Amino acid sequence: MKTITCTAPVNIAVIKYWGKRDEKIILPLNDSISFTLNQDEMCARTTVAVSPSFTEDRFWLNGNSYCSVLFAVFLLLVYSIVLSRAYISVRRRASKRKLEGSIEDILNWHVHICSVNNFPTAAGLASSAAGYACLVYALGQVYGVEGDLSSIARQGSGSACRSIYGGLVRWYKGELDDGTDSVAQPIAPPDHFPNLRIIICVANAGRKKTGSTDGMRQTVQTSRLMEYRVKESVVTRTEAMMEAIQDKNWSTFCDLTIADSNEMHAVCLDTFPPCVYMTDTSHAVASLVHQYNEVKIARGDLNHKVCYTFDAGPNACLFVPGAVVKEVLALLLRTFPPGPSQSPTEYVKGIPAQSATLSKELMSLGDEDFEGGRLKYLIHTRVGDGPRLMLDAESSLLDHTTGVPKPTNGTA
Amino acid sequence: MKTITCTAPVNIAVIKYWGKRDEKIILPLNDSISFTLNQDEMCARTTVAVSPSFTEDRFWLNGNSYCSVLFAVFLLLVYSIVLSRAYISVRRRASKRKLEGSIEDILNWHVHICSVNNFPTAAGLASSAAGYACLVYALGQVYGVEGDLSSIARQGSGSACRSIYGGLVRWYKGELDDGTDSVAQPIAPPDHFPNLRIIICVANAGRKKTGSTDGMRQTVQTSRLMEYRVKESVVTRTEAMMEAIQDKNWSTFCDLTIADSNEMHAVCLDTFPPCVYMTDTSHAVASLVHQYNEVKIARGDLNHKVCYTFDAGPNACLFVPGAVVKEVLALLLRTFPPGPSQSPTEYVKGIPAQSATLSKELMSLGDEDFEGGRLKYLIHTRVGDGPRLMLDAESSLLDHTTGVPKPTNGTA
Repeated sequence: MKTITCTAPVNIAVIKYWGKRDEKIILPLNDSISFTLNQDEMCARTTVAVSPSFTEDRFWLNGNSYCSVLFAVFLLLVYSIVLSRAYISVRRRASKRKLEGSIEDILNWHVHICSVNNFPTAAGLASSAAGYACLVYALGQVYGVEGDLSSIARQGSGSACRSIYGGLVRWYKGELDDGTDSVAQPIAPPDHFPNLRIIICVANAGRKKTGSTDGMRQTVQTSRLMEYRVKESVVTRTEAMMEAIQDKNWSTFCDLTIADSNEMHAVCLDTFPPCVYMTDTSHAVASLVHQYNEVKIARGDLNHKVCYTFDAGPNACLFVPGAVVKEVLALLLRTFPPGPSQSPTEYVKGIPAQSATLSKELMSLGDEDFEGGRLKYLIHTRVGDGPRLMLDAESSLLDHTTGVPKPTNGTA
Repeated sequence: MKTITCTAPVNIAVIKYWGKRDEKIILPLNDSISFTLNQDEMCARTTVAVSPSFTEDRFWLNGNSYCSVLFAVFLLLVYSIVLSRAYISVRRRASKRKLEGSIEDILNWHVHICSVNNFPTAAGLASSAAGYACLVYALGQVYGVEGDLSSIARQGSGSACRSIYGGLVRWYKGELDDGTDSVAQPIAPPDHFPNLRIIICVANAGRKKTGSTDGMRQTVQTSRLMEYRVKESVVTRTEAMMEAIQDKNWSTFCDLTIADSNEMHAVCLDTFPPCVYMTDTSHAVASLVHQYNEVKIARGDLNHKVCYTFDAGPNACLFVPGAVVKEVLALLLRTFPPGPSQSPTEYVKGIPAQSATLSKELMSLGDEDFEGGRLKYLIHTRVGDGPRLMLDAESSLLDHTTGVPKPTNGTA
């Protein structure tokens, strides 16, 4: 039995991917740029085992501990479709290379795959990107595939291709019909903006939302503003963003990130019927960030601005310079305190942070009612690197003799 | 003393006015189209008195009964600035004509003006449009001004120019710098879509919002999507809307109305910082309308579709064919019931309507939680005509001997 265990990160786009030019092999209408998040706080972990003794391909996702049975069945279905696609791609590539006899054998063996996320799938935190990236990376390791894996990961879940690399990553939309040039590439290392922190504000309750695949399709089909975004606006913004990244111009980076998030949600609203992902709570977080930035701008302190971005859901993702992370956390805790049924000690997850005393000026921010329970919790994390190969036997999710999940794998 | 009393209607745009090409004389970036609402349910009433015995110009707005003192002071200030402008315009026009001696005298007399709205100003229901239209119309009557009044009303509050006419009204943006061709014109009579009803869903609580003057300016300055709306999208939609109106194509009218409202709020969201006027409740009303229309579409019953539009606030304005108004009201009452502190009998204002029993199909609509108190109340009204001259002495808000407000005028 050959066993490989990998972890892969979540990524958060600052130039958004919204809309496909090819639905089948997932080719996007525009380039996107993302930060890869650190895997200590959030990651997917996948173990792939191949053995001549396996009698069928088997797949386990998240045990039953992180998601309802119904949700698991649904995800399994989706995963298995994509899995076969990704799997075939990896097999095909492996076949093309000059193979040693042993690898040719391996390609005919059945596979067991076990995958978990170390963060709640239900939070709507782009868990599929990490999951698909991890799957593709692990399969690539098993079959010794070299070269670009991002275009395979892309075919599972578009944004998964960006989770193949660490730091700042650009996914090029590509021009070819076969999608071979629609790949992700790293554009800056994780410490490019030193000590940058990320705070994810997980919103409590959202509306029943349109899934992103359907939402994108409907936007492309019905939004007039979307034409302009794709042809003009996001193209120039992407180049401006590349320049801001090269120049390490944090202030411009923040403005562009905010503008692109709002433009994406604007074209969603312009869809017929409208796709509405942001809630009153989402807008309250965004408003707080703008108020905070106004204080910083008034002081000429542009390097300590904060920016937000929202995916196809109500959760805010904030990018926060390390120097102000304590005061930003304190401000968030004051404006969005936990509700009576929430545990204050489990309200901020991830990197521990001491609390800061807010200045009088910052105490005046927040035009909302400071109602408790608007957020589920906060996740405090940072930028991280790409998928990792886990060499210790304890990391494996599958038992090394039976090839089925260890009893503990649901809680990894 | 010469006294004139007039009433003027509220109007609701179906092709939205958002963005000025000239801030000073209020010239819009695009044409807009609106329905004028019936004055029995909502109107502004203004009495203008001129007399050689008045020693100064005086102005009363809504007594103190409809608005806080602070709000009254603020509005008075705004009104007085615009008043003087409108007033001068009217005087100038009157001067240009060959005047009888008596009118020349009247131009030198001081003026007393009293204005009230018969609906709550605080509801954010474009009360200023009705107010300015009424003021201009009444002044026009006093000074015997003939010809277009809409371009004067426009200078008070842009959309006020549309309240100068009844039925369906188009405000042409015009091409000239002096704004003389930026006028409103009636394009169809009030009964063009026979028995059409309007239901205004006044939302309970909104966020602290950016005023529409500031909001428009910021959108023009910062939104890339706005360029496209103004240059392309709203231009073609306006022509499509004119065609739908001419053809009495209600289904297309509905789709265009919804699309333009969402496009306007999309460019608001695309503003930096974003202008967010719609709340979770607003989106819940919009979602219910789309669900309702899907039922009608599935039955091929396109003439009974409903459409929504939102101004710069959280209130939904629904256009409802008379044949389905009872079931739409019943659906709204079910999905948005009054809260425990609200009076069910005062919850639906305006035209009385018997309740309808909802079909099983309609009972299944509404993906929300049917929480009480999300709306303040509903106003049920219809399309109406333009400003009216009130000939009965009782309508006057000013005492015919003293020229100061009658004791009752705050509650008219």
